[in-house]
Amino acid sequence: MPLAGERPTPVAPERVAEWIERFAAISEPDSGPGVTRLAHTALERRAHEVFTDFMAGLGLTVWTDAAGNTIAEKPGTEETAAVGTGSHLDSVPSAGRFDGIAGVVAAMLLAERVVTDGVGHRRPLRFVAFAGEEGARFGRACIGSRIVAGLTTTADLHQLQDAKGVGLAEAMAGVGLDPDAVADARWSPREWAGFVELHIEQGSVLADAGAAVGVVDVISGSTRLELTVDGVAAHSGGMPMHLRRDALTAAAEVVLELEALAGTADDGRRITVGRLEALPGSITTIPGRCVLTVDIRDIDLERQCATAEDVLERAAAIAERRGVTLTSRHLAEASPEELTPSVRRTLIDVAREVGTEPLVLPSGASHDTQMIKQVCPVGMLFVPSRAGGVSHSPHEDTDFGDLARGADLLGAALLRLAR
Amino acid sequence: MPLAGERPTPVAPERVAEWIERFAAISEPDSGPGVTRLAHTALERRAHEVFTDFMAGLGLTVWTDAAGNTIAEKPGTEETAAVGTGSHLDSVPSAGRFDGIAGVVAAMLLAERVVTDGVGHRRPLRFVAFAGEEGARFGRACIGSRIVAGLTTTADLHQLQDAKGVGLAEAMAGVGLDPDAVADARWSPREWAGFVELHIEQGSVLADAGAAVGVVDVISGSTRLELTVDGVAAHSGGMPMHLRRDALTAAAEVVLELEALAGTADDGRRITVGRLEALPGSITTIPGRCVLTVDIRDIDLERQCATAEDVLERAAAIAERRGVTLTSRHLAEASPEELTPSVRRTLIDVAREVGTEPLVLPSGASHDTQMIKQVCPVGMLFVPSRAGGVSHSPHEDTDFGDLARGADLLGAALLRLAR
Repeated sequence: MPLAGERPTPVAPERVAEWIERFAAISEPDSGPGVTRLAHTALERRAHEVFTDFMAGLGLTVWTDAAGNTIAEKPGTEETAAVGTGSHLDSVPSAGRFDGIAGVVAAMLLAERVVTDGVGHRRPLRFVAFAGEEGARFGRACIGSRIVAGLTTTADLHQLQDAKGVGLAEAMAGVGLDPDAVADARWSPREWAGFVELHIEQGSVLADAGAAVGVVDVISGSTRLELTVDGVAAHSGGMPMHLRRDALTAAAEVVLELEALAGTADDGRRITVGRLEALPGSITTIPGRCVLTVDIRDIDLERQCATAEDVLERAAAIAERRGVTLTSRHLAEASPEELTPSVRRTLIDVAREVGTEPLVLPSGASHDTQMIKQVCPVGMLFVPSRAGGVSHSPHEDTDFGDLARGADLLGAALLRLAR
Repeated sequence: MPLAGERPTPVAPERVAEWIERFAAISEPDSGPGVTRLAHTALERRAHEVFTDFMAGLGLTVWTDAAGNTIAEKPGTEETAAVGTGSHLDSVPSAGRFDGIAGVVAAMLLAERVVTDGVGHRRPLRFVAFAGEEGARFGRACIGSRIVAGLTTTADLHQLQDAKGVGLAEAMAGVGLDPDAVADARWSPREWAGFVELHIEQGSVLADAGAAVGVVDVISGSTRLELTVDGVAAHSGGMPMHLRRDALTAAAEVVLELEALAGTADDGRRITVGRLEALPGSITTIPGRCVLTVDIRDIDLERQCATAEDVLERAAAIAERRGVTLTSRHLAEASPEELTPSVRRTLIDVAREVGTEPLVLPSGASHDTQMIKQVCPVGMLFVPSRAGGVSHSPHEDTDFGDLARGADLLGAALLRLAR
């Protein structure tokens, strides 16, 4: 039996594969390829029940808060601030099997190893499955972690709506959560000494560099906008080209303008139009309205804000020149966050101690951990994505051996922070 | 009582308004602004029942063929080939109140005047409501008139599908039609001596010229394509700009390239992307697939074919340069049709006789009449569109007085052809 502070026995890749597949099976039927388990749905709750059952089976104390976050605690030798790890169990539509799930499965198998090996630790260990991390449905990411960090309130929940007009508060209440009691879910800095999340990279930097593991220094911020272009719907045969006010050609010009604005330098700035709807959507009608979303990511807050302004200015100029109307809505905003240097140091140390040189890199994607930084020191460990780094896609892939190794390093770091 | 061949008493604008509104009320509930009464739906059939009841009430013989076209006949003094008029009762999604309906309402009120006034005529008069004129649902326009013209067969009906994968034959059977018996619906050239359709212009040429009525010389052809761009879906934050294979930015470039190809010369060539879907349609996912439709209209067949080839070549070049894949599907094809000079002459004559100088113009939109040209001599009368010529839109507008005057000219021409 390892002594307090030592590493537990390694996590088996087969166990990782088994749990990744079990969660992947919890998916919207007939939703096409990949996993679809959207935020604040019954399917997300079912995944949380699987997590709860597993952790309770290990003898841990498990609770779900009003926001839908599920937390499992293993007491330490002292009643002091806890250290935690975890990630999220929801997905985008037609997602892969790893985004978020990898970090929860790592937490589960790590809890299992710690219990089975009887590893001692001074601080309580907490294993967390956050709710509603993906912004795909309500346009705002990290709902569960924002709530525990005090960044999202009951009032916000009553304002956000999905594409079908379902309110976030309504969706939460519909699956048994309590949007009006989320203030109670807030984490106190006194209760938390540190938090480390394991996640897949969702890019190809680690694979291209041949690195087995990455340590995140900064998480990109994100500004999300919805642009609506209003032109004039008209008959595709009857209306001559020079008299048209086509909302789609204007929107297409905006899409290309934003691509040009983002540029091709790999400097941490990314602009994506992920959703574009042309209305009324008939072969023989010139589109009268186009609604598109813009996701601006940056590791530099000043440039992120300037880019958002630039996006709106350039889109407005295109609209004006084409005689169509542009309106915009601010969907969400998150600043870039530098993760805590001391936790980063611990992550680098535990990797080097087993002969693994980690690559320090920024994260383009948002993560729950950037919210938790409001509460306590935080760090993130990336495991390599395969398939060219594709994520938010059924083709998302990560080697189970890489994931097991990542879980081992996560465990070593967590137990060091819990000493 | 007018003598044989004379003009019946004028159609009242109030009656036109009354019937336009009655048909407009037959619309899909909760489908947004405007009229939605798609081809081969129960709502389209309900509109045909209204037409049937009205015509039967006038004492005409009414029948509906296997394709869903409804025909009302008033016998002439001789059993000879008939002359007919009519248009269609289906609509695009979120349509106006006039496209198609104007010509059916003109036929109804004209039948009423001819019966009430006891106007004599040698040839039988036929009043027609065609089924499924709009190509919005199945990508092919003028299904009902194509069938009577022998241009669409049972086999074709079993091939076409709507966006939800519902087959056209299935949709027809679902509303009580008989796709397997449509060969029986075919019109024999021996039975038909002429056909004239009244329609709104769906453009602003008449209004801009201050003309009260238009006579169509040629109807544009139409080539409809569906393009699918396959890139790689990936995380909007994780994937750097220079490594992306974004299906939407490629599709946006295609949209702008086609707009440039169409040019701004008002030379009868029009290219429209009416439908564009970006998949999976998530704010935080780079679109991996885009499906768009292209509607090419032209009054010159050779140029129309060349444009279609050009569209595919330019789209393929964009796809190749961007490292995405382009596939295409041919949805429908109709050649430009010159309408019959003798019928055009009759339409011009009856207008001039009442002091109205008609404008001779091409039609950018397809119409049932271009199919009926396979059967007998044909002509078309346009009444002015208001609101800048907007059509396939809730803002579509035509003056009820203009429509009544158009119905009067239509009646005069029809009775002259029926002498």
